[in-house]
Amino acid sequence: MDISHFSERINQTLSTLTYGENPTELYAPIRYMMELGGKRVRPLLTVLGAYLFQDNVDKVLLPAIGVEVFHNFTLMHDDIMDGAPLRRGKQTVHEKWNTSTAILSGDVMLVKAYELFLGIEPDKLPQALKLFSNCAAQVCEGQQLDMNFEQRQDVQIEEYLLMIKLKTAVLLGFALELGALLNDASPADAQHLKEFGINMGIAFQLRDDLLDVYGDQAKFGKRVGGDIVSDKKTYLLLTALERASATQKLALEKWQGVNGSDEVDGKVQAIKELYDELDIQNLTQNQINHYFQKGLHHLNEVNALNSKKELLRLMAIQLIERDS
Amino acid sequence: MDISHFSERINQTLSTLTYGENPTELYAPIRYMMELGGKRVRPLLTVLGAYLFQDNVDKVLLPAIGVEVFHNFTLMHDDIMDGAPLRRGKQTVHEKWNTSTAILSGDVMLVKAYELFLGIEPDKLPQALKLFSNCAAQVCEGQQLDMNFEQRQDVQIEEYLLMIKLKTAVLLGFALELGALLNDASPADAQHLKEFGINMGIAFQLRDDLLDVYGDQAKFGKRVGGDIVSDKKTYLLLTALERASATQKLALEKWQGVNGSDEVDGKVQAIKELYDELDIQNLTQNQINHYFQKGLHHLNEVNALNSKKELLRLMAIQLIERDS
Repeated sequence: MDISHFSERINQTLSTLTYGENPTELYAPIRYMMELGGKRVRPLLTVLGAYLFQDNVDKVLLPAIGVEVFHNFTLMHDDIMDGAPLRRGKQTVHEKWNTSTAILSGDVMLVKAYELFLGIEPDKLPQALKLFSNCAAQVCEGQQLDMNFEQRQDVQIEEYLLMIKLKTAVLLGFALELGALLNDASPADAQHLKEFGINMGIAFQLRDDLLDVYGDQAKFGKRVGGDIVSDKKTYLLLTALERASATQKLALEKWQGVNGSDEVDGKVQAIKELYDELDIQNLTQNQINHYFQKGLHHLNEVNALNSKKELLRLMAIQLIERDS
Repeated sequence: MDISHFSERINQTLSTLTYGENPTELYAPIRYMMELGGKRVRPLLTVLGAYLFQDNVDKVLLPAIGVEVFHNFTLMHDDIMDGAPLRRGKQTVHEKWNTSTAILSGDVMLVKAYELFLGIEPDKLPQALKLFSNCAAQVCEGQQLDMNFEQRQDVQIEEYLLMIKLKTAVLLGFALELGALLNDASPADAQHLKEFGINMGIAFQLRDDLLDVYGDQAKFGKRVGGDIVSDKKTYLLLTALERASATQKLALEKWQGVNGSDEVDGKVQAIKELYDELDIQNLTQNQINHYFQKGLHHLNEVNALNSKKELLRLMAIQLIERDS
């Protein structure tokens, strides 16, 4: 059994799903968003997490899609808040329709995510929904912290790591934990899987920060250096600011706020040179490796067939070593 | 036992509730919104609905608050979409903070609403959440229809009645049905209570339309004639358009879009005169009475003590005969 088998089952389930019909203005954006594609990482984690404990994953398919619908709900609302024009190369919902529709369609998506969990066996439903609600609130907290950081000049690395944990990693952890729970994993195994997901999630986001600066433009979907241009307080920038000499710090700070079209190439170049002087690429890669190893350690602790765990290890490697 | 006893229990439960702490920017708007007050009609309906079938209403208190939190979530997001500056005489959340915060705090409120249902007994939880999710999606559909109608010139009365049913009435119906379900009402009784709530909700909204034009400015919270100024397609306007002669129709249409500060008083006056010519006040009042009676009929069918049903009758009368 390989990953593509489970991917296919997820895509097949997705293709049978209807979200609602009328009014069209409410439901068309949901279909649009869900059909933009993506790697379906989160439902795959739920299904692979479930597969560890029982071969039959039928009953986790709809809840797994619930996690994906929730994820896409957060993307739809985040895109409004970030004023993002594009998502996966296509117009964002608030651009293609308008902000009100993106708010309201997103709201319905959150409701639909909950609905997709309602087929869970009654004896497991309260716990599953408690874990999900807790996770959903944390994701919102992470997004709020992310917005707060835009206004702050004194963000600490620890705070940044907490933010990406909340905004990105806890959902990967929940996706795995949910699969484990539904296929009768022990609490200890479910907890290890969750920690595996959280650590992978942090590594995944740090990899994203790294790719923004050191990615291959041909492979990277977004503009390389985009975070630098927009002064995003990434792990790279915060680490550079922490390690910089007084002169280097002044140089880094001098570039903040510079965004003229004739200046940004110079800015990206200059900041990259400062990063190189401060060994930021290696330091970030070390952190990625740290979280990756920590995650793998938790996966190793899970009581399941090694051949099944191998699928999750493979997915983790794909996520962390991706170029785009 | 009178209504104020149940109101007190709701307010007491509300006062013990915490929604979350950090980040402050996320949770302070939720507290602000919940503390703006209001009549707490929806949780009261849940509690009174439950009281019909068992004296003890302890277990419905938190789910009842869940309905109120959901209602306030819809207000927070609707205020963004409507660009409303004030809510209950105070700044709206998106005005006091900003749009992103109002989106995100609203999202968390929807999650918290679900969380407040999670204490429901496991054997009733799936049905309660299914009913709630269904209702929540309908409320969003109603809001989308309301926005669609702003762009349309051919809205039919039947469509308008469907819109207010979805946007306003189904939540009152659900609030009652939830209380009934949790205190072991028969399916038939739960259904009658729900229909009572839906019909009251439609009457309630029609009363709102009426008050906007014929309300006493001293008692009415909002500006009398506000719907006329903003060309809102209310029951009154749609009925007038349907019954108007060709000349009257031209006169009504002539005023659409007029909103200069020196013109609006004349506009309100002129439209009101047309409404009077067309007997719109009486026609609307007849419709209110129609839905009111239809609702009461459903309440009569419920198998419960008359003395208990009297509390709901009283509440319905207060809602429909209110001045503000």
